Amino acid sequence: MAFSGEVSNKQVIFRDYVTGFPQESDMCFTTGTVKLKVPEGSNGVLVKNLYLSCDPYMRILMGKHEVSSSFSSYTPGSPLTGYGVAKVLDSGNPDFKEGDLVWGITGWEEYSLITTPQALFKIQHTDVPLSYYTGILGMPGVTAYAGFYEVSSPKKGDRVFISAASGAVGQLVGQFAKLMGCYVVGSAGSKEKIDLLKNKLGFDEAFNYKEEHNLDAALKRCFPEGIDIYFENVGGKMLDAVLLNMRVHGRIAVCGMISQYNLDQPEGVCNLMSIVYKRVRLEGFAAPDYYPQYPKFLDIVLPYIREGKITYIEDIVEGLEKGPGAIIGLFKGRNVGKQVIVVAHE
Amino acid sequence: MAFSGEVSNKQVIFRDYVTGFPQESDMCFTTGTVKLKVPEGSNGVLVKNLYLSCDPYMRILMGKHEVSSSFSSYTPGSPLTGYGVAKVLDSGNPDFKEGDLVWGITGWEEYSLITTPQALFKIQHTDVPLSYYTGILGMPGVTAYAGFYEVSSPKKGDRVFISAASGAVGQLVGQFAKLMGCYVVGSAGSKEKIDLLKNKLGFDEAFNYKEEHNLDAALKRCFPEGIDIYFENVGGKMLDAVLLNMRVHGRIAVCGMISQYNLDQPEGVCNLMSIVYKRVRLEGFAAPDYYPQYPKFLDIVLPYIREGKITYIEDIVEGLEKGPGAIIGLFKGRNVGKQVIVVAHE
Repeated sequence: MAFSGEVSNKQVIFRDYVTGFPQESDMCFTTGTVKLKVPEGSNGVLVKNLYLSCDPYMRILMGKHEVSSSFSSYTPGSPLTGYGVAKVLDSGNPDFKEGDLVWGITGWEEYSLITTPQALFKIQHTDVPLSYYTGILGMPGVTAYAGFYEVSSPKKGDRVFISAASGAVGQLVGQFAKLMGCYVVGSAGSKEKIDLLKNKLGFDEAFNYKEEHNLDAALKRCFPEGIDIYFENVGGKMLDAVLLNMRVHGRIAVCGMISQYNLDQPEGVCNLMSIVYKRVRLEGFAAPDYYPQYPKFLDIVLPYIREGKITYIEDIVEGLEKGPGAIIGLFKGRNVGKQVIVVAHE
Repeated sequence: MAFSGEVSNKQVIFRDYVTGFPQESDMCFTTGTVKLKVPEGSNGVLVKNLYLSCDPYMRILMGKHEVSSSFSSYTPGSPLTGYGVAKVLDSGNPDFKEGDLVWGITGWEEYSLITTPQALFKIQHTDVPLSYYTGILGMPGVTAYAGFYEVSSPKKGDRVFISAASGAVGQLVGQFAKLMGCYVVGSAGSKEKIDLLKNKLGFDEAFNYKEEHNLDAALKRCFPEGIDIYFENVGGKMLDAVLLNMRVHGRIAVCGMISQYNLDQPEGVCNLMSIVYKRVRLEGFAAPDYYPQYPKFLDIVLPYIREGKITYIEDIVEGLEKGPGAIIGLFKGRNVGKQVIVVAHE
């Protein structure tokens, strides 16, 4: 098959809007063909996808409800989209050339034509695993960085709690907090994850929320003097319990609420008066607002990786056909660390 | 009765911890005697109470639950305490002398011995009504000032929504916002209050939440492009509706949640994911954290009053015996404007 000719292009298709818990059958495969050239006059780029990222926010895009312009639903019958690492095969854009490695939003398919390449990041540092650009050096990394350093106003000695702590974002927040001299506790949903938090990621304490009958009691055990910073990934009952345990002038960085995404009706949170009693700040944020700071982010995080001060746990599956199982597994908590799909190694 | 001798001292006594809706019968009167001198060796002040303030936070202190060190429950069998304006009759403290007018926490009684006078503010400006120091120039004024200017990051053109908008705090926030060039909408619970908001306090729009079947629809009608700043006084269903109507990077200054104070169990708030979708900041605050800025506050607000740029609506009842009815009325929304009790005119 000639490089400039048409090649087959396997795709993961989003079948229809999802309510409740998504299933692998909400996606299907199709194989079309693609010309490995950008169309005449386009200033897009044609890329070969190497790694695809499974991220919780993708569940939101599977629903029909339009929640804001930053969260537009997937189109039934079209491929899923998401963050990924890709290699430019052809470019109609002066900022990109054949052979460039990029990360950003791409399609769940072998080859993608990206028509808004200005939103892509060019990968300049390849002494680290390329898959890291779906995680620690990609959107989840910026999320952890912004949510901790920019939103949480952290300082040495702060008592930090992180839910979904072994996930793509949580594991980084915990390590950032430890590097700053905080006391750090995480929650996760399996013994294996708790072991990782305590023995590999350097958390001071961790608990399995599935084995705690009373989340408030678990938090009081780990934080007898209360919580200064809560990095919120799950919402619902955990948020309600955390609110009872915040310290005066505590901060809650609201990254996401994965426990709520598969419910028809979100759970009510009852303890919001704690926000007044303790003068707590609760702030939602999203990585793209911080992308202009990406170079500064790299200056901080790349040395941490190279010097071994931060480790990053990935859960890598091989092959696009494993994609639907991987994204569904994310909502079931099956992944241990950042969930990545290898589409092609180069 | 000699000034230095004992005089009778009528008191409003807190009978016992309250659950559910408080009643006048949760308070009773007693008349003791008091010596109009500070005890030998005390550095307190003995004051004659002139005006007492009815504030929503007092309901929290009527409950048994200890929510934080700033909200210690009332002591059954002892007088209520609250903000008030008083005149110093005798002082064991070098910072205060007989005849000084002060505002701060005092007792619901004719005369009080205040043992921590360092928490009192000396009243320097008496060209405005003294009762204002329970409202626009007291704790509610600082609350409105801090919640709007310090917490809400306001700017000209912002779309501002205020609940309990004709109350002691809300009416001020609305006028501050208008002075800054914002579009301002308030909600309240009677036609009379809505008329005041629109015709006397300069709000752009106002609605009676008791007559709206669908709060979300009412907000969408008033804010077709969404809300930049919500000044939260009520909580519960209103907060849930507001969350659906916030704009990207909106701010919610959480002053209180009066709709929740008389419930055994607070209502659940379901739409918190909007905080992520719209990257909203929700921040609890309390006036005492801003008391160090009181001189700066006066520099801004006193001229507004003197120049007639801000008006302040008070609901004044005469006589300590009207106290229990006035505080209960506050929770029923009977007051129109700041609820004040006159204990003595001088």
